[in-house]
This record gives sequence, C-alpha cells and structure tokens, in this order.
Amino acid sequence: MSIADDEKFPARVYKDTVLAPLFEGVKRHHWRYQMQINQASAVLLAECGLLTDDEARAILKALDDIVATIDLDKLVYTGEHEDFFFYVESELIRRLGVDVAGKLHTGRSRNDIDHTVFKLALKDRLAALLTEHAAMIEALLTVGERERDTIVVAYTHGQPAQPTTYGHYLAAFIELSLRDMDRVLHAARTVDLCSMGAAAITTSGFGLDRARMAELLGFAEAQENSYGCIAAADYVTGVYAAMKLLFIHAGRFVQDLNAWTGFEIGHLHVPDAFVQISSIMPQKRNPVPVEHLRLMASLGAARCEAVLTSVHNTPFTDMNDSEGEVQIAGYEAFDTAHRLMTLLGGLLAAVKIDSAKVRRHIDQAGITLAELADSLVRTEAISFRQAHDVASKLARRMIDAGMTLSEVPFTAFEEIFAASIGRPARMSEVDFRRFTTAEHFIAIRTMLGGPAPAPLAASFERYRADIAAKRNAIDTFAARKRTAETALAHEVARRIAGG
Amino acid sequence: MSIADDEKFPARVYKDTVLAPLFEGVKRHHWRYQMQINQASAVLLAECGLLTDDEARAILKALDDIVATIDLDKLVYTGEHEDFFFYVESELIRRLGVDVAGKLHTGRSRNDIDHTVFKLALKDRLAALLTEHAAMIEALLTVGERERDTIVVAYTHGQPAQPTTYGHYLAAFIELSLRDMDRVLHAARTVDLCSMGAAAITTSGFGLDRARMAELLGFAEAQENSYGCIAAADYVTGVYAAMKLLFIHAGRFVQDLNAWTGFEIGHLHVPDAFVQISSIMPQKRNPVPVEHLRLMASLGAARCEAVLTSVHNTPFTDMNDSEGEVQIAGYEAFDTAHRLMTLLGGLLAAVKIDSAKVRRHIDQAGITLAELADSLVRTEAISFRQAHDVASKLARRMIDAGMTLSEVPFTAFEEIFAASIGRPARMSEVDFRRFTTAEHFIAIRTMLGGPAPAPLAASFERYRADIAAKRNAIDTFAARKRTAETALAHEVARRIAGG
Amino acid sequence: MSIADDEKFPARVYKDTVLAPLFEGVKRHHWRYQMQINQASAVLLAECGLLTDDEARAILKALDDIVATIDLDKLVYTGEHEDFFFYVESELIRRLGVDVAGKLHTGRSRNDIDHTVFKLALKDRLAALLTEHAAMIEALLTVGERERDTIVVAYTHGQPAQPTTYGHYLAAFIELSLRDMDRVLHAARTVDLCSMGAAAITTSGFGLDRARMAELLGFAEAQENSYGCIAAADYVTGVYAAMKLLFIHAGRFVQDLNAWTGFEIGHLHVPDAFVQISSIMPQKRNPVPVEHLRLMASLGAARCEAVLTSVHNTPFTDMNDSEGEVQIAGYEAFDTAHRLMTLLGGLLAAVKIDSAKVRRHIDQAGITLAELADSLVRTEAISFRQAHDVASKLARRMIDAGMTLSEVPFTAFEEIFAASIGRPARMSEVDFRRFTTAEHFIAIRTMLGGPAPAPLAASFERYRADIAAKRNAIDTFAARKRTAETALAHEVARRIAGG
Amino acid sequence: MSIADDEKFPARVYKDTVLAPLFEGVKRHHWRYQMQINQASAVLLAECGLLTDDEARAILKALDDIVATIDLDKLVYTGEHEDFFFYVESELIRRLGVDVAGKLHTGRSRNDIDHTVFKLALKDRLAALLTEHAAMIEALLTVGERERDTIVVAYTHGQPAQPTTYGHYLAAFIELSLRDMDRVLHAARTVDLCSMGAAAITTSGFGLDRARMAELLGFAEAQENSYGCIAAADYVTGVYAAMKLLFIHAGRFVQDLNAWTGFEIGHLHVPDAFVQISSIMPQKRNPVPVEHLRLMASLGAARCEAVLTSVHNTPFTDMNDSEGEVQIAGYEAFDTAHRLMTLLGGLLAAVKIDSAKVRRHIDQAGITLAELADSLVRTEAISFRQAHDVASKLARRMIDAGMTLSEVPFTAFEEIFAASIGRPARMSEVDFRRFTTAEHFIAIRTMLGGPAPAPLAASFERYRADIAAKRNAIDTFAARKRTAETALAHEVARRIAGG
Repeated sequence: MSIADDEKFPARVYKDTVLAPLFEGVKRHHWRYQMQINQASAVLLAECGLLTDDEARAILKALDDIVATIDLDKLVYTGEHEDFFFYVESELIRRLGVDVAGKLHTGRSRNDIDHTVFKLALKDRLAALLTEHAAMIEALLTVGERERDTIVVAYTHGQPAQPTTYGHYLAAFIELSLRDMDRVLHAARTVDLCSMGAAAITTSGFGLDRARMAELLGFAEAQENSYGCIAAADYVTGVYAAMKLLFIHAGRFVQDLNAWTGFEIGHLHVPDAFVQISSIMPQKRNPVPVEHLRLMASLGAARCEAVLTSVHNTPFTDMNDSEGEVQIAGYEAFDTAHRLMTLLGGLLAAVKIDSAKVRRHIDQAGITLAELADSLVRTEAISFRQAHDVASKLARRMIDAGMTLSEVPFTAFEEIFAASIGRPARMSEVDFRRFTTAEHFIAIRTMLGGPAPAPLAASFERYRADIAAKRNAIDTFAARKRTAETALAHEVARRIAGG
Repeated sequence: MSIADDEKFPARVYKDTVLAPLFEGVKRHHWRYQMQINQASAVLLAECGLLTDDEARAILKALDDIVATIDLDKLVYTGEHEDFFFYVESELIRRLGVDVAGKLHTGRSRNDIDHTVFKLALKDRLAALLTEHAAMIEALLTVGERERDTIVVAYTHGQPAQPTTYGHYLAAFIELSLRDMDRVLHAARTVDLCSMGAAAITTSGFGLDRARMAELLGFAEAQENSYGCIAAADYVTGVYAAMKLLFIHAGRFVQDLNAWTGFEIGHLHVPDAFVQISSIMPQKRNPVPVEHLRLMASLGAARCEAVLTSVHNTPFTDMNDSEGEVQIAGYEAFDTAHRLMTLLGGLLAAVKIDSAKVRRHIDQAGITLAELADSLVRTEAISFRQAHDVASKLARRMIDAGMTLSEVPFTAFEEIFAASIGRPARMSEVDFRRFTTAEHFIAIRTMLGGPAPAPLAASFERYRADIAAKRNAIDTFAARKRTAETALAHEVARRIAGG
Repeated sequence: MSIADDEKFPARVYKDTVLAPLFEGVKRHHWRYQMQINQASAVLLAECGLLTDDEARAILKALDDIVATIDLDKLVYTGEHEDFFFYVESELIRRLGVDVAGKLHTGRSRNDIDHTVFKLALKDRLAALLTEHAAMIEALLTVGERERDTIVVAYTHGQPAQPTTYGHYLAAFIELSLRDMDRVLHAARTVDLCSMGAAAITTSGFGLDRARMAELLGFAEAQENSYGCIAAADYVTGVYAAMKLLFIHAGRFVQDLNAWTGFEIGHLHVPDAFVQISSIMPQKRNPVPVEHLRLMASLGAARCEAVLTSVHNTPFTDMNDSEGEVQIAGYEAFDTAHRLMTLLGGLLAAVKIDSAKVRRHIDQAGITLAELADSLVRTEAISFRQAHDVASKLARRMIDAGMTLSEVPFTAFEEIFAASIGRPARMSEVDFRRFTTAEHFIAIRTMLGGPAPAPLAASFERYRADIAAKRNAIDTFAARKRTAETALAHEVARRIAGG
Repeated sequence: MSIADDEKFPARVYKDTVLAPLFEGVKRHHWRYQMQINQASAVLLAECGLLTDDEARAILKALDDIVATIDLDKLVYTGEHEDFFFYVESELIRRLGVDVAGKLHTGRSRNDIDHTVFKLALKDRLAALLTEHAAMIEALLTVGERERDTIVVAYTHGQPAQPTTYGHYLAAFIELSLRDMDRVLHAARTVDLCSMGAAAITTSGFGLDRARMAELLGFAEAQENSYGCIAAADYVTGVYAAMKLLFIHAGRFVQDLNAWTGFEIGHLHVPDAFVQISSIMPQKRNPVPVEHLRLMASLGAARCEAVLTSVHNTPFTDMNDSEGEVQIAGYEAFDTAHRLMTLLGGLLAAVKIDSAKVRRHIDQAGITLAELADSLVRTEAISFRQAHDVASKLARRMIDAGMTLSEVPFTAFEEIFAASIGRPARMSEVDFRRFTTAEHFIAIRTMLGGPAPAPLAASFERYRADIAAKRNAIDTFAARKRTAETALAHEVARRIAGG
C-alpha cells in the first residue's frame, strides 16, 4: 500500500464523533467491569502458571492503585491511547514495566473483554429490573387480593360487556406479567454465559480454563463456541426483545386505565395527588400520569427495538454494531422500565374503584343479561340459543325504552318469553331480579380462572407461589454475581497480602 | 337511543372491506379448527350432562354432515349471517331445530372459540416451523462436521482476522440457531394453553371442566385467568417476537455469505445451479440466492413486527386487533421462514470453500501473526505485549513491502526482534514458519469452544445431543395435538355409532 | 475457478423458494408493464436508427402476438428461462430469429427495465390511492360542512375539555389529511422519474434519448444519475414512508372514534348496519368497524415499514432487496389503504352525533367554564388569572356538590367572586347563564381556525380549494401516464400498419 | 365525586418519575423559547389593547428580570408549581401582583404554548441539520468533481459489474442526498406553522391576531384549524419520517464503503488517522469508522422511528404522547445525524481510491466485456443478443482458464466469434483491446446521467445549482426566525425603554 497518510491517528473528526463519546461511555458505565475482568485475568493467569505469584501480586496491586488514583472527572479522551483499555494498560506499564504489565493481556482480547463487560453490565440491570418487576407484580397482587370482591365493568370492543371483580381483572394482568417476567428470565440465561477466553475469535493456545474464568466473574458458565462468544449478539437481542413485550403488554393495560379514568366512564378514581390541572380550563381534572405511562411504554418498546435495528443486516462477524454505543442506548430502555414500573405500581396502589358509578353503569348497560340467558337454560330447560334470544329481545326493549335493566318491568320479560318460547316462563320475579344482579353473576362463575371467590383465591395463591419461585430465580441470578464479586475481592486481597 | 337506522346490518362498505375478507380468511385457514372445537364442545357438554347422549349424537352427526356437504368454493359471504360461526349455527339449526342445535353454544362464546382456533392454527405452524428449523440445523451440522478441518478466514470489522475452520465457523451459527429454537420453543408454551371455557370474559355458571376441554383439543393445559384467555394476546406476541430474532440472526449470517461469495473474497464457491447471469454483462456470476435470503430475513422480521405493531397501544380488552386479520398476516412470516430455512439449508449443502483462494488470502493478509506473538510468549519468555509489539512491527514491514507473510524473510524477524527486545531471538526459522501456518494456528487452539479438532468435536457432540433433545420436545408438542385429534375422532365416531 | 458444478441452473430449492414465486408475481402484477416497455424500446430504437422500420414492425407485431396468445394460467415456471424477461425474449427469438429479436435489448438491461416496471406499477397504485384519499377527504368535507353547527365535546388528555362543533373537529382531521396527501404527492414525484437508459448501471454507448423514452412511458422526466436509476431505491422508501404517516394519523383519528362510540360516552351513534352483536351477551352493541379501522391503520403502517426494513443496511448497490418480492409486499399496504379509506369514508357518512347526550355531558362536565373566565376578564376588568381562579373555585364547588353546571346556583358564583376579588360581581345571572352555554362558547371564537361559523366557513372554503388543486395535481399525474399509453398504442398500431 | 384524597399533588412517585424529569428537560432544552413566547404574548396583547402600554412594559421588564436572575443549576423541581410554566407565572405574580401578571395568559394555554415551543426548538435543529447536510453534500461534490476521472468498480449484487468513475458513483449518492434534503425541507414547512392562538383547543373570544403572533415568533404563518394546532402532531412525525429516510439511505451508502474498504476489495484506502488496530492481531487495520457510521445510521433511524411509535394508536386528542419527553427523545436523532454527517463528510474527504488495485480487479473480473458486446453490435452489424453471446463465451473461456481479460488471446475471440456468427470478425486486435479498456467504456457513455466527462460535468453543474437553491431555502427558513428574534428583542427594548 503505497498511499501516504499524513494525519496521525485519530483524525480529529473521528475523535470527536466516536472515540471521545465512547470513552465517556466507558467512564460512565463500564470501566469498573473492565477493572474486575483485569483482576480476574490476573488470578486466572496465576492459577494457570502464566503469571508467577509475584507478577500477579504486582499487577493486582497496580490495578488497585489505578482504581484508587483515577480521577474520572479529569480524565478526558486525548487520542493518545485508542481507548480506555489501552489507557489502563499504559498505566500498568508505567507502574510495572512492559515485561510484567505486558503479560496481563495473555490469551485474551478486547473482543472477549468487551462482550463480557457488556454482559456484566446487563446482568446488573436485569437483576434490578426483575426485582422491580417482582415488586410491581406483588403490589398488584396486594391490590387484587384486597379488591377481590369489588365489582367492576369488564369491557370488550370498548363496550361494557360483563361484571367481574377488580381483583379478577387485575389477575389477568398479573398472570400476563408473570409470563412477561418468564420471558425476561429466559433471555437472562444467555447473558449469563461468559465470553472470556474466546480472545479475538478463536481462543488461544494458552489453554486457559474458561469455566474457571466464568466462575471468577459470577457467570453461570462459559459460552461455548468462541466465534459466537464475540459475534452472536443474541444475548443483547434476546433481552431487548423480551423487554419490548413487557412494555407493549404494560401499554395495553395502561390503555384500559386511560378509558377507566375518563370523565364519562370514571370507574377508576385517580386521587388529586396524581391529577394535573389545566392552565385555562377551570373544571379540568387530567389524570395525566396515565398518558405518561402509555408514553413510557411506547418509548421503552421503541428503545428496545432500536437495539434490534442496530444489528439488523449487519454481518455476523462485524461487532461494533452490538458494542458500546448500542449497549448504552439500550440502557435507556432499562431506565424507562424503572420509571414505568415504579409509577404504575404507585398509581395502582393509590387509585380506587368508584363503586357507585360502576353500579349505575352496570344497570344502564344491562350487562348481566348474559347470565339471565344462562339462568333460563337452567331453570326453563330451553336451549342456550333460545334463552339468548329471549334475553336479546329484552335488551332491545330496554334500549328502545331508554330504561336501565332494573327499570325494565318483569311483565316485559314475561311477555317476551311467552311470545318466544310459546309458553309462560317459570321464573319468578324474585329470581329474575336476583339472576340479573352483578353479585349473582360473579358468584356463580366458579370455573377455573373465573371471578367467583373460590377460583380467584386459588389463582392468587398460584400467582403468589409463582412470584415466590421467580424471586428465588432472580436471587440466584443476582447472588451468583454478587458472591463471585466478594470471592474475587477476597482472592485479590489474599494475593496482595501474600506478598 | 332515539336515532333511527335505515340500513340493515351489514352495511355494504363494511361487508366489502371487513366481513367478506374475514369470511374468506376463515374458509382458507380456520374453519376446520372451528368444527373441531364444535365436536369437542358437544363431547364435553355430554360428559358434563348438559347434553343428553342423544342430543350429542344428533349434533355430532349434523356437524359431520355439514363438513361433508360444505362447498367452500361456492360458499360466499352474503351478510345473512354475521360470520362463519353463525353460518354453521344456522346450518345446525336447519338440521336439528333450535331446541337441540341451540344447546351447543352453552358456556362458550366466540371470544374463547376464536382464540382457541388461532392457537390451534399456530400450534400446527409452530410444529412445522420447528421441524424445518431442526432439519436446517442438522443440515448445517452435517456440513460442519464434514468441513471440520477446512480452513477459512474468520473476519472481524469486515477484515480478515484469523484462520479457523469452516466447521468452527458454522458451529457458531449452529449454537446461535439452537438458542433461537429455544426461544421459539419457550414461546410455544403459551400457545399451548387452552382458552376454552373463558366464554366471553368471565367463564360461565355451567361448571364446565376446562382441563378436560384442553385435553380434548390437545393443549398442554387450560390458560387460567378467563379474561386473560381472550385478551392477553401474548401467545401471539411471544411467538412472533421469538421468530423475529430467528430472522434477524439468520440475516446476519447471510450477510457473511454475501461477503464470502463476493468476487474479490470468493472464499465460498456458489455452484452454477444457484448463480444468475446478467442480461447484458457477459462476465457476471451473481449468487443472487444470497440476496434473496437476506431479503427473506428482513421481510420475515418485518412481518413478525407487524403483529406486534398491531397490538401496540390497543386496550388490553379490545380484541379484534389480535384476531383474524392479524393472525393471517402473521402466517406470512411462517411462509417466509419456510422459504428461508429451505433455501439456506439447500444452499449451504451445495456451496464449497475455495481452499486455494482462502490459503492465498491468509498469506497475503498475514492473519497468523497473532499466533506468532503467542508463540514468542512461550518460546522467548517475554510478555505478551512485547511479543505483540514484535509481531506488529513485522506486520508493518510486510505491509510496507507489499509482501505476503511467507515472503517475509526470516532475517526481517530476527532484526526486529533484536531491536525490540534487546537480544537475539531463540526461535529458529523452521519454527517461525511453522508457527505462522494456519494449521498450527488451529491445532493449538484446544480450549473449550475453540477450532482445534478435539474441542470442535466435543461441540458438535453437544449440539447433536441438544438438537436430539429439542426434536423430542418438538415431537411431544406436536404429538399432544395429533393424539388428541385421533382420540377426539374416535370419541365422535363412538358417540355417533352409539345411536 | 476449478470447482466443478454438477447440477444445472436452477437448483430445485432455488426454483421453488425464489424463482417460481417471482415468476408468479410477474404474471400477477408486472408483465403488462414489461411488454409496454418492450414496445417503447422498439419505438425508441427505431427512432434512434438502431432498428430499421421493418425490424421495429416485426418486433412490435411479435410482441402483440405474444400478448394475444399468452395463456397466463398455464404458464408455469419451468426453470428453462431464468425469468419472465428471458421467456419473452425466447418467444421473440422463436418468432423472428435472434438476428432481429436480439436487437430489442440494445442499450438496456433488466436493471433499468425492472425499476421502470416497478415505477409504472407504483404510479398506477398511487393514482388510485390519491383519488380514493381525495374522495375520502371530500366525504369528510361534506359531513363537516353539514355538521358545522352540531355541537360536540372536544377532549384533551382523554377528558372533556371544551365544546366545539363536529364540523370544526372534522376540519382538524381534514387539514391533517390534506397535508398527508401533500406528503404522498411529494413522494410521487420521485416515482415519476424514468430509469430507462441507465441499462445495467452506467447507460450505454448507444446514445439513446432518455427523455424521449420517459415521454413514451408517461414519466415526468428521466432520472438523472444512471447508477441512482437502478440503486437509489428512494422512490420506494419515499412513497411508503409517506403512506405510513397517513396510516398512523388515520389511526389516531380512529382512536377518537373508538372513544366517542363507547357506551358511556356515546356521542357518536353508529347505526345498526355497522354494529356487530355478541354471540352470548344479549345487550351488546359492538361498533366493531372502528376496531377494524384501527387494525387496518396499524397493519398498513407496519406493511409500509416492512419495505423500509427491507432496504435497511443493504448495500446501495445491491438491488434485489428493493425488487420484485419487496415491491409486491408493498402493494399490500395499498390494498390496506384502499380498505381503510373506503370504510372510514363510509362509516363517517353514516354515523350521527347524539346531541342530547353531548349536551348532557357538557353540562355535567362544566366544560364551558373556560369561557366564563374569559368573560369575566371582559366584563369585570380583572386579570385572566384572577378570573380563572374564580371559575376554578366554582368548578370545585360544582364537583364537590355533585351538580351539573346549570344546577349551580348563581349565588354560588356571586359568593365566590366577592370572596376572591373583594367586591361584588357586575355580571348578571342572565349573562352568567348565557356565557356558560356551548352556543356562546362557540359563537365568540371567531379567530382564524376557530369554531365560530365565519372562520369555519373560511376554513372549509380553503380546504375545498386545496382539494380541488390537489385533484388537479393527481389528474395531471395520472393523465401523463394514460396519455402516453394511448400515444404509444397509436404509434405501435401505426408502425405495424405501416408495413 | 365523594372519594376523599389524602395526599396532596404531586404524589412522590409521580414527581420522581415524570414531573422532575420533565422540569429538567425544560431547563435544558425549552425554557428560553417559553420566555420568548411570553415576550411575544405581551407585545401582542398590548397591540390588541388587552394590555396597556404600562402593563406590557411592567411584564416585559419582569420577564427580563426573571431571565437575568434565574439560576438554572439551583432551580430544582419541588412540586410547589406544577411545572416550569407555573413557576414563571408565580415569579411574575411575585413581582407584579396577580392583577397585572395574571393578564399575560389571556387567550392562550399551555397547549398552544407547548407546541409552539417544540416547533421553535425543532426549527433551530432543522436549520442546523440542513446546514450540515448541505455542507456534507458540498464536500461530496468537491470530492466527486475532483475524482470525476478516477476509475472505480461499480457493483451490483455484490459483484463487480462495470467500470465507472468515482465521481459518477458519488454523484449517485449526491443526487439521492439532494432528494433526502428535499424531503426534510418539505417536512420543515409544517414545523413553520405557528400554533399560538389556538389556546387550549378552540382559540378564544379575545380576537387575537394569530398572523401577527406567527410573525413575532418568526413562523411562516399560523397553522389554521385550532384543534389541529395542538393535536395534529404531524409536524413531528413528518420531520422524523423524513430524517429516517436520510439515515437509511446514508446507511446503504456506508455499506458500500464497508465493502470497498475490505482487505480483499480494498478499492478505498482509509488513511491511518481513521484506522484502529487490534489489541492482539498485529496485522489488523480496521477502518472502524465505517462500522460506526453504519451504527449511527441504524440508531438514528431507530430514534426517528421511536417518535413515530410514540404517537401510534394514541387518540388524536391526547397530547402528552407528542410532548416534552418525546420531543427530547427525538433530539437524540438530531445529535446522531450531526455525528453521522460530520464523520461521513470528514472520512470521504480523507479516503483515496487505490487505482492500482481497481485496475487489477477490473482486468481480473473482465467487467468491460459488456462494452465489447455493444461494440460488436456497432462494428459487426449483429444483434445485441448475438454479440452478448459471443462476449459471454469469451467470459466463460477467461474464467475457465483462470486468466484476466487482458491475458485472453485475441485468437480466442476470433475463434468464438467465427463459431457463433458463422463468419470471421471484422474487429481488429487493436480495437478489441481498446474496446475492452475501462477508459473507453467510460468515455463512450455520454448519455444523460452517464459517467463520461460531458454528462457528468452537466450533472455536477445541476447539483451545484440545486444545492445553491436549497441553501437559499435553508437560509430563508433560518433567517425568518433569526430576523423575528432580533425584531422582537428590539420591540421589547423599545417598550421597556418607552417607560
């Protein structure tokens, strides 16, 4: 290549647009993980005989010294070192000389280090996210159990459809949220595979113990194929794809809250502490937190998608598309999830069902009529379609007359039944009225997953058990890393003291 | 409501733009599942005592008769019945009268029926997809095992980086694909939860055995919360989110193929059977299938995303956004996956590594120099950074002189080493040449996940075991449904014959 | 390249997964455009002296004969010819021999032909889409003008905020739709640039008149840079990005319809012809078309996005990612737009405001209080914030007492005013009542873009003028192509007859 | 509403997750625009007679004082005021009393203020973006003009296809970029419509001059329909949809750079200043900026899409989904665009074509053979297909023999020609060699948009004129706002001094 290059690395424009921002990103998010990996490398190399104990001790002391003396605020990217990694190596060399300091990088590469750093950072974020998600689900469970008998209107197609309980409704979202957590936990398993030892692509000839390195850093195990360790970015895509669903599903629930808190529906009362006013409309009570929740869910989903977009159509073996800048972009989704789950949990703990309004709308909409039809099947020995036909005609009569269901005279039912079925109804007015109450509607629905007290209590019990099991899984996931950190710190201290 | 409505349901424009297309969709994709649910309902109602044996027999016979006599080609949506469901009910009533026919719909609703239909349809598609994916992975495994010793160039950042084997490279994608399959299998578990019994939203008061209904239809179990059964569309979003990753990851691998089949790189020879010509450029050999694969991966991912987009910001309790039209739109992603996996498997079985070209480029690019550095660590007892420094200077000499690595004179190495380290190198020219061969490079990388024969063979063994286990899981998943279908057919026949 | 290839082109799997589907796509969507380009090429080559008149006549006759005798249903992809283009060339050669037939492809390539075909197909779809969009806007204008005095509730944050007129509300969406159309028209300009003459990439040395070719095919002009003609797929991305906004904006409007047609709000009455029932809930009136519209908007947007996804991260100079399969995938977005606009136009022509309910809610929500504050500014010479404070206290009194605004006694106002401002109010009860009517609220808002009759009439006038101008632009766009088709047909007939 | 609320606004969790972050966002991005609108409001109200000159003076002085004394670093959200707007109003009231200060908000609302703020902020960002885009295009033009005769390989389907010039290739991207700018400019027109006067939704009864307010703030004109002013968020979606295309198209060009800078192709030499090394592979030269550019293009596109996602399926009349948090999220896309365009411009100014390598590959790939076929048409009076057939056979001979095109003996051509056409060729060897040079290939392509010097010079001339015209449009766009700011400052000073 005979083309002469005048300018030295790095070009000013490259430094300003890429290297300096990346350096700031490492300072803000990643450098401690890098230092931890340096410690683990020193320990491993000593254990494998590639460092003498004295060399390891010197390196570990120097690393400690770097951490102790580094002044992050003043540390500005100058271009002298390509990146933070080389900056640390230069500091090591300054302290120990290249003949000792130069051994730390034996059998590794920035490729495996970087992805290990990103995985460690993701593991911490996942542990926090899962813990907050568990807390939100438990908060919902508490509300659901408390409100297991509070009647609400269940909608389909945006229309009042049937009465159920607030607890039963929340249970639907709780069950979904448990599956959402399941998906994130499943995705976390790939993050828990250590990349160290893959070196640049193909491992090295130094015979390093990859399982031991995984253990030192608190991973479940080593990721196998070494090329995959640095290129198969599915630990990233898997996590964000799962989180995206969490956001989308939460957003659907929030759209219900949006409807329920509307002035005309108003089944959910949002207390003043969550209500914003208008600067010019005096009567306005805006439960704006609900809109913000929807927005957080949308932005969160979009931020997850941004990570997927970044790797789309990139070669398997090009890697910057899944490195620093993308990783940090992804962290915004975690921040958004944190805000979403905190606010959603807090809001749901504060809102209350306006039972008077619910009861009025149930009567106005006549949404217990489905049970009247079912009751007719049981009491009149007619087929469901016949019973439904009677109930439909009654509904039509109610709507045309502008009455509520309780205002419909029993004689109207008697007339319609007789005309439809060809004989008088056996049902008494007392039963007619009872069968069209919301209480009866709910009490009789005792099937698995239904709103009656017994099945709902059973559901809550199962969810409690499920969330407890998931708490265990989260704790195991988080403890593995925490325990390893403690052990590594001890080992480092032991080796330093060993001098 | 005093506003008078002149036109009868359905409005012409609604019929043309929605109802008729949906009806065609049911005819094409869903009606047989609906009929199956009708059979299972009749059996269940009989078992629960809500139908007499005679009534059940009559209904089952009539259902058989409808299936036998239906002429799908001639069956056009007229608007007389709201949809296919009501069309079938009307056919039942025509045959049996409303007093018997009207009983079939006891304790159920189109809501739970629809989502159960969609789940049955998805289960069939998932079983097919997983089977084809397994076949593709096995095809890759076969190639990988065959080519475990074929040397290729491994790239990072679009540049030749290190030698490895074709088998080792494919193993990276195989391992990723196994995790992709894992994600789809995990998503399939939610599809395997039966919605029947949820009825419209809240179950019913008929005490139907939901577990039995799940069994009759070949589901793993009943989905619990009844509102969730009809509204928590995560069985859909979960599947398509997982499939989307499969597409994105396949697309990244395809971008590698794209680079490898380029004229100048040319490491992968695409046989004529897959090569298109130009209509005007005589020398052109276009391995266009690779481009088509990339496109399929993109379109497939986008089609999955379309399903997620459809439910975004829809209320939890509105359901058409996850029903017929969306479901059918999603099936296109399965078709795309089928084409992608078939073509990718077929292409990979046909292409061959052009080893002469690979070898030439390895020498030109000098990509074994990393191992020279490692070897210096071992033979010269210098630190890695020192060794790397020597190798870097040698690389610079090679590049500046426009030589290949094998053309670099040994004296150049000796000079650089002596100047750098301050003493002559111990390494002989024979070793120098040997340590810079691709064969040595690979053979020495025996760590877990590395390209040397032993670890690679161990990897392939693990993948074989993994795919075998997954085949089992797929078979269990598919067999549950198939077995239930047979059992239901027997039970129906028994009941009909029982007359 | 010494690697031997056994199988002949095309490989079975490639044929099945790519070539045959593409061939079917050409048969269904594109072949007539290809034939038209063939005709135009023959004419151009004759005009440029590259064909004699006799040769041109022979080719044009043979082309006519091919069109006349082709049996699309029986024409199945066999792999004998790479694609439809080569099939037609072979038919030409069979009829005329290669020495004449072989001249038609002078100075062109499948690259420029394909993109010209896609542009012709898009132009037809765009003309249809724009025409339907114009019709929908005009339908909305008609409703808006008719309902210019019909009072409705305007919402912000999901809460009733102020009265306005239905006409004024629709005007907001009409104005937005006009801008949506503007964006599509702007995008259509790039589609109107002809690619012919670019040949494979760089034009040819035959000196063909590209402007004449553009004219023959009814394009506005030739696209300039020849590489861009076949690679800068922004004619596709531009169109679908613009259409995507149309879908997203329509979907937001539909979400308003969804709220307005809910049972509790119910300001918009959907006639029976658009209302679906429940299979088990007798009272249910589901205005499901609204949900379907939302879904169409989502799916439409996602289908547009699929086209953008397909070109993302593809090299500028790879082209299959923007060819046949993607183009046809894009057409689904046009189909969806057709259904959406037809249904939305039809539904809006049929629905009616339930004025009694609107009036009741206006009074219940007290949403005219903002005007009371404004009126106090004018009549009492106090500052807006002071006036707003009075109105806010009155609103709080109304809410706490569970009254409607008209039920609030005037004395309450008098008390609050005096306490707040420190002097009795001058406003009479008559004025107080008048200033809090919806009619007054609207009548006084005569500013540009406001709901009072005068500004609203002016707005409608401007929209009428705007849509008329756009109709002209659409007609010009469509006529250019139609006229060229007629002219080409005449020229072909003339040349054939000329023999 | 009888439900008692204990906690005062704002709830702690709401404050932490929403209000405080929004407040910080206003401090960082928006508050100066708010103050500017306050000034303009005071001027307008004075001009309309709703403020006396003295009142206006007092308010303007107090506003100045607030700006002068505000300490942003110390200003922390306490929850005392709902947001920054109310904080400023309280500061005004503290200084002037509510009877004067309370008049500033006459005839306006946070709704119209907010969207006007966002538009002002977007206008500044658009002006900067367009200016940088223009600079990047001009930088490309300079390179293109300089390299108008530098031969490069043009690719299709990832394969070398034809020679062209670097200038011609860049022209393709320049022409596309000009259309990208056109799309952004078109979108900017909607941003240039002022929302002020719309107040909350419906304007007010104060008869404010909306055109004057638009002028005071430097907008092109007032946006008409008042509901649309605060709800039709297409000024946002339009901008980000257009910018997204800019990112996607830039990313495609970057993928070409990625291929061109690969080791084996290597047609584009990236100087050391832009090349990163490997921490362990000594020979590695990684032109990583190209990967970063691709990533920026992907992330930029995704960030644009995030804004579109945020408004998807939100009601037309809910507004927080397009307010503060989304707006600020969108600004990240501008930052990304800034980095992308700066780096792309800088990189392209620095890279150089490696002409020796280009020439070698042209000969190896034989990509001038298309012109041989064309030349045969002209010199031998045979049809294109016949000529192409001869050239194809020659290409096959070349490939099979492993020769370059210049190595192919002329006799091979003579043999093939004679065998194919049935007579000896007339073409001499001198012509044969000349017709297969890249220079001839380019020189003869003089058609519109082709690479020959004349048409390419004409293209550049047109692009220069186009970018000059666009510079004018950008300047007009930016100057309108700048001029208005100056005029407003003068008017404010005049009114204050007027006291």
